[in-house]
Amino acid sequence: MRRSKLVLATGAFDLLHFGHLKALEDAKKAGGSDSRLIVIVARDKTVERRKGRKPIVPEDQRRALVQALKPVDRAILGFEELNINAVIRRLRPDVIAIGYDQNDILEAVQVVLKNYPKKVKIVRTKRYGPEDFNSSSKIKKKIVEELR
Amino acid sequence: MRRSKLVLATGAFDLLHFGHLKALEDAKKAGGSDSRLIVIVARDKTVERRKGRKPIVPEDQRRALVQALKPVDRAILGFEELNINAVIRRLRPDVIAIGYDQNDILEAVQVVLKNYPKKVKIVRTKRYGPEDFNSSSKIKKKIVEELR
Repeated sequence: MRRSKLVLATGAFDLLHFGHLKALEDAKKAGGSDSRLIVIVARDKTVERRKGRKPIVPEDQRRALVQALKPVDRAILGFEELNINAVIRRLRPDVIAIGYDQNDILEAVQVVLKNYPKKVKIVRTKRYGPEDFNSSSKIKKKIVEELR
Repeated sequence: MRRSKLVLATGAFDLLHFGHLKALEDAKKAGGSDSRLIVIVARDKTVERRKGRKPIVPEDQRRALVQALKPVDRAILGFEELNINAVIRRLRPDVIAIGYDQNDILEAVQVVLKNYPKKVKIVRTKRYGPEDFNSSSKIKKKIVEELR
């Protein structure tokens, strides 16, 4: 009996936008028609440490919005110390989806998978949407310009 | 045989946030356990005419994100000329959910329902979330302050 594939995706999802949705839909599809998609939503402290700035929207609300998206089966907050190794060993995904802008995550995942007993498929999700609206930072920039 | 109730909600949903989600969940619940929720997403031109400023996120993407939310059965773009009368007569909702900040919509709906043959329940949805993050305009303000 083939069990449904577990797909793992991660992100901050600050100012949820169309590009996030499309990437999560692609992630889910990468696991086949009956896959389950679990999304690790980065904690405020993790975002602050990695990007030098707290997210606009607090972690609980970022998690709740991602959880409310149709392609997402479960959204959970990450460890405060981002620990890809622990996440992979605990959740044991079949597929890991990595965003176009997540090169650091890709590298960390590749290190973990070198000494990991199970085969895991890595898929890279694309950048979506018109140039002005495909990232939270561009949306923020547009807001600042319009309200100036 | 009791058919499932149709609930109608409307909004711009620019910068989708937790308060939008909670209001849509409440709207759906107001129609009972097997209700269907249809959301009219305001067109860019309608938002610009009513608020004096175009939305940050284009209408197609605002619609797609609302459609992707679990409580939403269908999200459709509104008429360019906001026409509550046509919307109600075409969709024939059992329940109309009106946001805490939609007094203008409430008034327009009440005018239409005065000469409308069917009984329609009006529910008012609450403001949700911490004070700083419960409206798109507050989120915009926070972004401007942080990036200044």
